[in-house]
Amino acid sequence: MNVGIDAFSFDLPKIYLPIPVLANHRNIEPEKLTKGLGLQRMSFPDVHQDAVTFAANAVLRLINQNQLNPKEISRIYVGTESAVDASKPIGTYIIQLLEQVLGTQNFNHCDVVDMTFACIGAVDALHTCLDFIRLNPTKKAIVVATDTAKYDLNSTGEYTQGAGAIAMLVTANPRIANVSQTVGISTEGVFDFFKPRRYINKETITQNPENIDWNGVLETEIAIYKDQPVFDGQYSNTCYVNRVKEAYQHFKNEQNTPTENISKNWQNVLMHLPYCYQGRRMFVELFALENPEILAQQEGETAAEKLKKLAKSPEYTAFVNQKIYPSEIASGAVGNIYTGSLFLGLLSTLCYHYKENSNLTNVKMGCIAYGSGSKSKVFELEINQNWQAAIAPVQLFETLEKATEISFETYEKLHKKEQKTSVIAPINEFYLSKIETENPALVGARYYEFKS
Amino acid sequence: MNVGIDAFSFDLPKIYLPIPVLANHRNIEPEKLTKGLGLQRMSFPDVHQDAVTFAANAVLRLINQNQLNPKEISRIYVGTESAVDASKPIGTYIIQLLEQVLGTQNFNHCDVVDMTFACIGAVDALHTCLDFIRLNPTKKAIVVATDTAKYDLNSTGEYTQGAGAIAMLVTANPRIANVSQTVGISTEGVFDFFKPRRYINKETITQNPENIDWNGVLETEIAIYKDQPVFDGQYSNTCYVNRVKEAYQHFKNEQNTPTENISKNWQNVLMHLPYCYQGRRMFVELFALENPEILAQQEGETAAEKLKKLAKSPEYTAFVNQKIYPSEIASGAVGNIYTGSLFLGLLSTLCYHYKENSNLTNVKMGCIAYGSGSKSKVFELEINQNWQAAIAPVQLFETLEKATEISFETYEKLHKKEQKTSVIAPINEFYLSKIETENPALVGARYYEFKS
Repeated sequence: MNVGIDAFSFDLPKIYLPIPVLANHRNIEPEKLTKGLGLQRMSFPDVHQDAVTFAANAVLRLINQNQLNPKEISRIYVGTESAVDASKPIGTYIIQLLEQVLGTQNFNHCDVVDMTFACIGAVDALHTCLDFIRLNPTKKAIVVATDTAKYDLNSTGEYTQGAGAIAMLVTANPRIANVSQTVGISTEGVFDFFKPRRYINKETITQNPENIDWNGVLETEIAIYKDQPVFDGQYSNTCYVNRVKEAYQHFKNEQNTPTENISKNWQNVLMHLPYCYQGRRMFVELFALENPEILAQQEGETAAEKLKKLAKSPEYTAFVNQKIYPSEIASGAVGNIYTGSLFLGLLSTLCYHYKENSNLTNVKMGCIAYGSGSKSKVFELEINQNWQAAIAPVQLFETLEKATEISFETYEKLHKKEQKTSVIAPINEFYLSKIETENPALVGARYYEFKS
Repeated sequence: MNVGIDAFSFDLPKIYLPIPVLANHRNIEPEKLTKGLGLQRMSFPDVHQDAVTFAANAVLRLINQNQLNPKEISRIYVGTESAVDASKPIGTYIIQLLEQVLGTQNFNHCDVVDMTFACIGAVDALHTCLDFIRLNPTKKAIVVATDTAKYDLNSTGEYTQGAGAIAMLVTANPRIANVSQTVGISTEGVFDFFKPRRYINKETITQNPENIDWNGVLETEIAIYKDQPVFDGQYSNTCYVNRVKEAYQHFKNEQNTPTENISKNWQNVLMHLPYCYQGRRMFVELFALENPEILAQQEGETAAEKLKKLAKSPEYTAFVNQKIYPSEIASGAVGNIYTGSLFLGLLSTLCYHYKENSNLTNVKMGCIAYGSGSKSKVFELEINQNWQAAIAPVQLFETLEKATEISFETYEKLHKKEQKTSVIAPINEFYLSKIETENPALVGARYYEFKS
């Protein structure tokens, strides 16, 4: 039985900062970012948006565009590293919001939960939902990847920022793609990128050696939450390459093709893209392993030199243009959306082929996921003949074209939360309307409404 | 094919505060807590313990007691609402710690992730791992429930505090129990208990209308993380009852026994126990539905009066003593451990029967899980003939007996993080050794070591 992805939808910020504008304010040569890293625009959440609104909007769109009966959705599994609560999952917010529009008790028997592992949590959610559908082929599951990738101002991560959600309908006999049951995995516990609490000694704030109450905190230290991660970009690249290499070989071993050149047979390669060109920059390592004869032809005395030449060789350039480029189109226009990044690349690729009117029936695509911390998963898609009908309503590129440019000043105000009113008023979408501050039994509760 | 739980292990704090001591300091009649709610002791994490050490210790014990080869463990899925990081899952910490003791690269192909949904996340982790083993019956998976249930001092949740981890080995043909593929589910998005960020307006701290840098926070508001939840106990009970009732009926519908008295056929009933007697107090609602003739015999003019009488009836008392009491033994001695609570109750029940030398082969037990936010899941266990061999090494009650009483003063110091050295020095276990404060690329990184 074939099980996989039957439909896609997404929700992204409607506003963006052009990368050259950011570069100029940060004294970076714009072409280093635009041509060097492939970055064109950085999408940024508006005042009323967060990982909940992105997820709920994407799921509502998935339901509406595919005329799903809410009651037939058995699961909504969320991959995220942007949870708004340490206990209550985004999954529960999604059904709270959807029921406002679709009617109460519509998700009464729907199993929801959040899965967290940096940028790979939604891949894990997908894999568990595929297993569920393999065992329950008459049921339907939704997987949502939702995140806001925010970095410190002036940090080296700033120009990779982005935000948004991708939702997928997982069914038997899916219209878009079957997903392989074989998965290659590589895991190592490391600190390449993480989002820890920042502990501040209370005495340094209160200037009082006595442990006095400070804003309701009775502990001797204050734990600050920040959206921004702690990370080491270079080291994270190393982890990415090591995990991906190991998971790729593991995938080949698991499907009993340990020495085959499998990427040759992939129409497209989808990778986690923390920035647009990360995939093409990293995949050359796998390309070298699978094409030793091309590597051997490269000039250079050391392996590193040969690899550098290979990255610029006509053979690898052709590989990139055919197999990786289609996934980069959306990434360059959106930025990093963490656990949705791989799926945004897949959606970008499918929309590209839809526009090109490519014949994709039965072609294979390779997925290479990465989550810091760290883990990689490699798996394969086989495209089904009705993929075009399922992609037609998605309108990814059309939506991106309608996005509105913001000024650098507005960007900084949004980043610092100095902007208090929406840059673009919400329309036909869920928005954050209020966070409770008074009622002690509800303080911190987030309320959302639908603006039609 | 039968799939389920093959082995159990746990890790709990070694220190506890007697509930009567707490009651006396809070001006509560001790018997209200000990006899009214069944609470005897409140376990509390020592200085060197957190959700990571509990989980890693429990998994290491599971591996050692069952002589597992680390390389044959395909998955470690964690249920938790006590994550120490918003991106890097506890699962990665577990393999980082285990590899210190068992050797590097032992978990190189192990799939790990965290699942979060209040007190039901580990049940979701179990269900996804059961699916995985059903599809890959030669593989082995580990599910870990790990949490620290901390409440504000002087709050109504304080006496329900607890902490610890339960680990389970999930396999085909398991020694302990097969788990039903049929699951009843009820879900509704609510705010009965959650762990939001507490936002503080920066100006109220800095007394400066300008948005100046405060401890590296450039935003206009500071987001504080607290372990302590925001909750409404009464409302949460209502949600618990509603979810449980609906999931119970859904389970019966799903297995085509919509009107059967299924609890009559359960040797034991395992419920999520936020406090010891929650199960017995809530289950009476289901008992009433399944035993309308006994309910009808009760005195009282209203349905509520009859239910109150039913709760004290000889029939329900016998039901509680036989079917619920065994799960309460550990709960009363440990407190609430959130997502591990249901499994601690199961382990308590199995250890009770092991001591009693009961014949459990082929008996059925019912599991009724609840997570605030809110969701309930109902499913069934069938005990296998080798359960005793698998339970023998666990030593739950023996370990609880060895726990050390602490004074109220020590408890408050631990709660306020004024206590800086371990009350009981770690031995034969992982402990938190350091949290990085200097290196900007590692600030907040948590380091653990094994003390042999």
